[in-house]
Amino acid sequence: MQPYELTLAAAADAIRARKMSPVELVDSVLDRVEKVEPHLGAYVTVTAEEARRAAREAEHDVAAGRLHGPLHGIPMGLKDLIDIAGAATTASSRVRAGHRAEADSTVAARLTAAGAVLVGKTHTHEFAYGLTTPQTNNAWDRNRVAGGSSGGSAVAVAGGAATFALGTDTGGSIRVPSALNGVVGLKPTYGLVPRHGVTSLSWSLDHVGPITRTVEDAALVLTVLVDHDPRDPASVANSVTDYRPAAGTDLTGLRVGVPRNYYFDHVDPEVEAAVRRAIGHLEGLGVRLVEVEIPLTRYIQATQWGLMVPEATAYHERSLRTVPELYQTDVRILLEAGELMPAGDYLRAQRSRTLMRQAWARLLKEVDVIAAPTVPATAVKADQDILTWPDGTAEGVSDAYVRLSAPANITGVPSLSVPVGHDTAGLPIGMQLLGRPLGEPVLLRVGHAYEQTQPARRLAAV
Amino acid sequence: MQPYELTLAAAADAIRARKMSPVELVDSVLDRVEKVEPHLGAYVTVTAEEARRAAREAEHDVAAGRLHGPLHGIPMGLKDLIDIAGAATTASSRVRAGHRAEADSTVAARLTAAGAVLVGKTHTHEFAYGLTTPQTNNAWDRNRVAGGSSGGSAVAVAGGAATFALGTDTGGSIRVPSALNGVVGLKPTYGLVPRHGVTSLSWSLDHVGPITRTVEDAALVLTVLVDHDPRDPASVANSVTDYRPAAGTDLTGLRVGVPRNYYFDHVDPEVEAAVRRAIGHLEGLGVRLVEVEIPLTRYIQATQWGLMVPEATAYHERSLRTVPELYQTDVRILLEAGELMPAGDYLRAQRSRTLMRQAWARLLKEVDVIAAPTVPATAVKADQDILTWPDGTAEGVSDAYVRLSAPANITGVPSLSVPVGHDTAGLPIGMQLLGRPLGEPVLLRVGHAYEQTQPARRLAAV
Repeated sequence: MQPYELTLAAAADAIRARKMSPVELVDSVLDRVEKVEPHLGAYVTVTAEEARRAAREAEHDVAAGRLHGPLHGIPMGLKDLIDIAGAATTASSRVRAGHRAEADSTVAARLTAAGAVLVGKTHTHEFAYGLTTPQTNNAWDRNRVAGGSSGGSAVAVAGGAATFALGTDTGGSIRVPSALNGVVGLKPTYGLVPRHGVTSLSWSLDHVGPITRTVEDAALVLTVLVDHDPRDPASVANSVTDYRPAAGTDLTGLRVGVPRNYYFDHVDPEVEAAVRRAIGHLEGLGVRLVEVEIPLTRYIQATQWGLMVPEATAYHERSLRTVPELYQTDVRILLEAGELMPAGDYLRAQRSRTLMRQAWARLLKEVDVIAAPTVPATAVKADQDILTWPDGTAEGVSDAYVRLSAPANITGVPSLSVPVGHDTAGLPIGMQLLGRPLGEPVLLRVGHAYEQTQPARRLAAV
Repeated sequence: MQPYELTLAAAADAIRARKMSPVELVDSVLDRVEKVEPHLGAYVTVTAEEARRAAREAEHDVAAGRLHGPLHGIPMGLKDLIDIAGAATTASSRVRAGHRAEADSTVAARLTAAGAVLVGKTHTHEFAYGLTTPQTNNAWDRNRVAGGSSGGSAVAVAGGAATFALGTDTGGSIRVPSALNGVVGLKPTYGLVPRHGVTSLSWSLDHVGPITRTVEDAALVLTVLVDHDPRDPASVANSVTDYRPAAGTDLTGLRVGVPRNYYFDHVDPEVEAAVRRAIGHLEGLGVRLVEVEIPLTRYIQATQWGLMVPEATAYHERSLRTVPELYQTDVRILLEAGELMPAGDYLRAQRSRTLMRQAWARLLKEVDVIAAPTVPATAVKADQDILTWPDGTAEGVSDAYVRLSAPANITGVPSLSVPVGHDTAGLPIGMQLLGRPLGEPVLLRVGHAYEQTQPARRLAAV
């Protein structure tokens, strides 16, 4: 096994045991980047020289007995919405030409302090406003979409071009590409990971979180990201200081909700089968399955869009007036639509969000976790815009991709996407586990128990 | 001294010592209501029979040694936005003809459980959307405005027609009428007092709080009102269980901020002189005065209106379509204006509120309390719409009345209005004390120290 193939936890163990040096690991990942990046298009920028320098520094620190923790010397990709002092945050957009961030974002500063080594900035659907990331190809089939908006991050992790990465998630943008590329993605509780220095799409729905190869790795990254930051007005205090899940796989006593509505409607049969198989596996680990009714489902789409569209437009107000031609057409149309929205529509969305939060809080008293598909279909061909369901109804690909992930953005509850197999075309399938606000430890425990009792996953062949 | 003239604390002492029975107190207040109400117009409904019955019950309980606490047997008025099971919540509006509340609001239930006796429902500016309360006359000059929107509550307390009352405050609606009628009004920290069952004007700015004759009385009422209620999505948890301030008047160690900008601009000279005199008095009690700069003042008015107008319209959406003719013209025009507001304007107001909250949090690290006028002028004549300032600028009365109180609604910080004298026309003047979120104990301590070292205030002569 090559170093670039290791999970974060395995790489950290090898570094701590001095069986592998950060330089070996970073060199291996950079070689892999050179090989696969022409097929993947995951990165906006690769900072190979800086990465090698940081790796040597990490090697030196580790040799001197100054190990910062499990992220020390680990190569990462950061979605290019995340500020790094002195570097451009391009948001994969021509609008940001000549940009230069003045300071590190909170998450970048925390990862750097933990010793993680930046490989480069990964592609996002322009300003995170879309679910495909057209610059990037799916790690399992280069003719298919990466998913988005954190497509570059998910593809880099899936293809061995980063050991872990960060994404952002406003309607599913961490979980959708994670599911479509067979990696783990965690959208934490709203406010848990500070967003200071991260380009906003829609501030009441935006989240930052890890994309990794295993649930355990997600826990290791989350541990470094979490801490109150007053510069993010939504930042919440939290007392958990170590998210690493215990090794046990006995889940007796936990109640896992299985939705009887919404989450299995208009879902590809292969996706449904894989997710139900995984849920059955959880039952084998001791959980009690409880059928649950998802509340207020007819409001989900209108609420997600009613919140997101005007907030996104408010953020882009100035450049939309001065340089509208620099946006991609799909994004510009969405931003311009936001200018026409009356305050009443936004307020209706705010009110239905309040009702949904309350209803989900009641639902999450009945069960500890809800298990459901992350995305209703696997990765579509790059030029496919429409999904047609067996009952003959057609649905836009973006609408379908966001449909099952949006409830966690609206309500703020955490959601963890875990790979649960592949369809007959070899494309990955994801299951999401949703939990109570600040219930990340339970999600990570369930996800970790699941993955420990499955065959080890392989990287995408690329 | 007649029972109706007593403060809540004095009446509670007399009841506890069995020197006065709840029946004597309630009868005295009801007699006073009968005498003064034709001049005041404070009440929508007086529930004399129910009050007498409740008083007899309280008398019986007290005699049997079952005293619930200091509010037991105390006559109160509730602003007619506050639900009482089985009664109409008229909001002083024709729109609510035939209304009947199904259940008690949280605050009404808590006050009833504490043994308080409802005298009646008090007038509000229609749906709380205005600052004069035209149905009600000022307690000190019946040709002048009561202030609003909790005009009925403030006038009832000032005129002896209730020992205490509740009001609501979205831009100053507790503090403005309290200042204009010479009583104490407390707008608590946003979320501290649950609003479940209280008609909303603008949910992100709405507060419920006490109107009383003394600061000590406000503390006694607040103690009963505070406790988390999940049915108000904004409700916050709080650990203080008794707000009654200690008796001491030494304020050494406290820093009181005196604004160098905004709060003394365009303020009537007599108001300014009275407030500065009161601030000097606080200095005599040991506080250190610190000049402070109020941040982002040019955004205050736009933020207050940008949040309030669309939220109010959203609440009234249906009846505005079905029965627009039942609203008073001033309120209908404001509601209709809200239909025309783009989402972007509301979002700009939300964003400037976030910045203002952060800036005020920094300001309130420099000082413990900020002291300022509550309202820039005393009560105007009932037909006066415009105030003209010495520099020749004109300002609408409502704009002027809300100007100094709105910052506490936008930021959510608590604000306590305390009477600090009268102008040469005999009209009351109020000083507001602003504090940190959940800093009510400090505000009450300062206000109580102030009032203990002043001559006892008299009721309005009516």
